[in-house]
Amino acid sequence: MERVPATLVAFAHRLADAAGEIQRRWFRNPVAVDSKPDSSPVTIADREAEAIMRELVARHRPEDGILGEEHGRERLEAEWVWVFDPIDGTKSFVSGRPLFATLIGLLHEGRPVLGVIDQAILGERWIGATGGPTLFNGRACRTRPCPELGRALLSCTSPQMFESAAERAAFERVLGRVRHAIWGGDAYASGLVASGFLDLVVEADLEPYDVLPLVPVIEGAGGRLTDWEGRPPGLGADQRMVVAGDPRLHERVIAALAGG
Amino acid sequence: MERVPATLVAFAHRLADAAGEIQRRWFRNPVAVDSKPDSSPVTIADREAEAIMRELVARHRPEDGILGEEHGRERLEAEWVWVFDPIDGTKSFVSGRPLFATLIGLLHEGRPVLGVIDQAILGERWIGATGGPTLFNGRACRTRPCPELGRALLSCTSPQMFESAAERAAFERVLGRVRHAIWGGDAYASGLVASGFLDLVVEADLEPYDVLPLVPVIEGAGGRLTDWEGRPPGLGADQRMVVAGDPRLHERVIAALAGG
Repeated sequence: MERVPATLVAFAHRLADAAGEIQRRWFRNPVAVDSKPDSSPVTIADREAEAIMRELVARHRPEDGILGEEHGRERLEAEWVWVFDPIDGTKSFVSGRPLFATLIGLLHEGRPVLGVIDQAILGERWIGATGGPTLFNGRACRTRPCPELGRALLSCTSPQMFESAAERAAFERVLGRVRHAIWGGDAYASGLVASGFLDLVVEADLEPYDVLPLVPVIEGAGGRLTDWEGRPPGLGADQRMVVAGDPRLHERVIAALAGG
Repeated sequence: MERVPATLVAFAHRLADAAGEIQRRWFRNPVAVDSKPDSSPVTIADREAEAIMRELVARHRPEDGILGEEHGRERLEAEWVWVFDPIDGTKSFVSGRPLFATLIGLLHEGRPVLGVIDQAILGERWIGATGGPTLFNGRACRTRPCPELGRALLSCTSPQMFESAAERAAFERVLGRVRHAIWGGDAYASGLVASGFLDLVVEADLEPYDVLPLVPVIEGAGGRLTDWEGRPPGLGADQRMVVAGDPRLHERVIAALAGG
């Protein structure tokens, strides 16, 4: 794919607008917080925001597939597949903290070609699509140079996302070498990498809808996103992710995670 | 003190306005990030925001004392002492993440009687003053009931803030019992407790300017803030803090930290 058709980019904006309207309606208003089987929280705002995006796909692009966090998978064999995380960072959402995001991805023949990170309370939207630069609120954005771990600003959502001792030790090899770490960013942190404010995000225990929408945003801004072994993210569960603004930094982080 | 004089409340707003103007000027613009002796980051925005507040005190309240993060202590024996953390959450500030805050406290004969948590990018301000309710953007706010650890939403800025094994173990006794934890909140998280969106903040490695401004905000909203032994915060270095929206929860957290 040389360039994502403009109609699909416009449709992605429309999906984000619809999800954002629901989030603004529920944010900081009383919502019941239910627990999913993995004990992660979910609210009516997550469910409604995904439902409205699925409805729009069903109405306007009925042949496309959908992979969503709250309402499952349909037609994953389709040429175009939409990937939805209606509220990435539900814990931030229910805490009244405007750092959650709607994530929207589009796969073409299995490859992520379009991605959106939308923060509807702040009115901030990153969109990346193959064939053009990543845009932040309509203006092209770039990652910043940072080849060295010792100068990097790292973000990680939670120290509790590392499940085995080996995984935690690998993460801590990176954590121990960076200049500073901040915590609690969720996908919004990857937007900040695309804009050149952060250098690095290292996470684990992610699902495909947490990761795939970020790929075009990061790549279109000059960065790299892979799993901890340097491979592109796929459709499997329980993924681990390295996002680096500078591809030289990315290489060093992969080596450090592997024990180097 | 029955009620903080309205002129002092108005002056605190004026200080926050002045600091916020400087933060909006520098936020997401290139700033050099220097390291302080404790390796924490500091920028020209921190220094300028504190300098403008100190200038205003010198001009309008020359007899008052000042305790500031960046420019030291003056006249701590004065009847009224202003406490300034010009940017609490400098790591968020330099990452382009609008969760940092200006903290302003006022001590009367050593006791915190007024506090401000101001987020200048979002336009969010909590102000608490003895004798009245805490206000969030001008409207009274309250903490929410949450007597049980097992239902509590906990915020903690960083897992790296616990310095000894014993301190970390005590924190983890609390962490292991709450419903959910979110990370990376800095003082903004205490504002969210005052508004009833979060239940609990447990932190360590804090300085008096990180803690004292929060006391009137939390108490005026119905919550409690003490050190890990249940004592009011003082002027010493390296403080540990428990902020709870529900005083019954506060009691249980103090017991859990002590090993119960």
